[in-house]
Amino acid sequence: QNTALRRGVLVMCHGERVDQVFGKSWLQQCLTADGKYYRADLNFPSSLPRQKDSMKQFESDPPLSCCGIFQSRLIGEALLEQEVTVSCVYSSPTLRCVQTAQHVLQGLKLNQKVRIKVEPGLFEWTKWEASRAIPNFMTVAELVEASYHIDTSYRSIFPLSSLVPSESYEDYLHYYTAAPLPLFFAFPAVPGVILIVGHGSSLASLTRALAGLPSRDSKDFAQMVKKIPSLGMCFCEEQEENKWQMVNTPVKTLTHGANTAFNWRNTILED
Amino acid sequence: QNTALRRGVLVMCHGERVDQVFGKSWLQQCLTADGKYYRADLNFPSSLPRQKDSMKQFESDPPLSCCGIFQSRLIGEALLEQEVTVSCVYSSPTLRCVQTAQHVLQGLKLNQKVRIKVEPGLFEWTKWEASRAIPNFMTVAELVEASYHIDTSYRSIFPLSSLVPSESYEDYLHYYTAAPLPLFFAFPAVPGVILIVGHGSSLASLTRALAGLPSRDSKDFAQMVKKIPSLGMCFCEEQEENKWQMVNTPVKTLTHGANTAFNWRNTILED
Repeated sequence: QNTALRRGVLVMCHGERVDQVFGKSWLQQCLTADGKYYRADLNFPSSLPRQKDSMKQFESDPPLSCCGIFQSRLIGEALLEQEVTVSCVYSSPTLRCVQTAQHVLQGLKLNQKVRIKVEPGLFEWTKWEASRAIPNFMTVAELVEASYHIDTSYRSIFPLSSLVPSESYEDYLHYYTAAPLPLFFAFPAVPGVILIVGHGSSLASLTRALAGLPSRDSKDFAQMVKKIPSLGMCFCEEQEENKWQMVNTPVKTLTHGANTAFNWRNTILED
Repeated sequence: QNTALRRGVLVMCHGERVDQVFGKSWLQQCLTADGKYYRADLNFPSSLPRQKDSMKQFESDPPLSCCGIFQSRLIGEALLEQEVTVSCVYSSPTLRCVQTAQHVLQGLKLNQKVRIKVEPGLFEWTKWEASRAIPNFMTVAELVEASYHIDTSYRSIFPLSSLVPSESYEDYLHYYTAAPLPLFFAFPAVPGVILIVGHGSSLASLTRALAGLPSRDSKDFAQMVKKIPSLGMCFCEEQEENKWQMVNTPVKTLTHGANTAFNWRNTILED
């Protein structure tokens, strides 16, 4: 098989989310007395997309921070520089993953060409993220309305209604081990890279399953996921038909420092 | 005096520098066996500007990281959104400060209009940054050659030759207290904001001197400077002629998290 025509699956974790920096109360920090959104820190996005119900829904489905947008764009630009051909993009239904996919595609200059397939089966292990209820994700129609480039013809493998709060580890793994993955995703038989934007857990579960490696126990799994940074990536390449192997990612890692909160009055003015 | 016409001085600290993330050996991490620069992590800049001598000189005068460029651009865009009129820009001679100034001006869409005045007097306290020798900064000609928008007609107040390695705290403060600051910088008598891009120490020394506050002792000074993040800002406004006061900055702070190094092989593949 010609290397240039080999298929690849690039699994990446979404970018920095606002609650990661500003905590669970991030939305309260950004609301005026009359309930309007404003940017309390420049790392908050300029605006929030419109959603059918109240802004409260973003509390369980937070957007990327500006830094998260920067991270996603940078990875897209690096993929373009390495001439990686992305033929197809799947995303978890969380806003942060759809946004990451969109900004990676912008960096790749593919945002007018490749549309994002929103697959609920790529959502986080619900025990971690949805212990009581599945978040009220933005619908495909709302995402399109908010200018995200969504593949509206895509029919998901696991409908939203199949997600169950606080599922067991075995049930979570089921998404990735039940069916041979290439079949599960109905990977198109075209060459090029299939990009999957998900959560830390996606890297740990999906790529290992695809490469035919045994799954870890739930404690090791949690340890592993903790180490995965924003835009952490794993790359699997098809060696023979439906035989996949983890190989080096087509682009390098992204490592940067934190920028701490600053109060000029306390730091510079006060004695 | 009309508020709209009041003059302001915005002092900011440069963005994230590569050695802040990758340590003193950052350049070694980015050199191939035959001495060519490559990007060992996506937070390293795509390329280094050409300098008269060897690349080694960047070790004592490191560039911004990609994250530092993002930070600077974001602040510039926020200043534009707040309709802040920047009439004049001064920068420390370090590459990271000139780059920060350039990217802030790009965010402000002023990079074709306002040129950067490189003032050696704005360099860091040499005891911290140049204990043995003053770094071999890029010359104005080299900066222009590397596409930085430099005011080549500007004549610095403190020539480079006046910088002394490992100066005492008193000598360092002298730059800011010797002359009334507005005179020192020959601030143009036009309204609008004078932007000064310097180091953490600039915020702590320059703004306090401008506002007529006493200087701190060197221990408190060091404590204060440690707390100043990338793009930390202080703003002074002229209340009456040559009477300045520290007031809220025209834009909010920028707070973001770190992105840790990631090794897919150790984290995902190994058992």
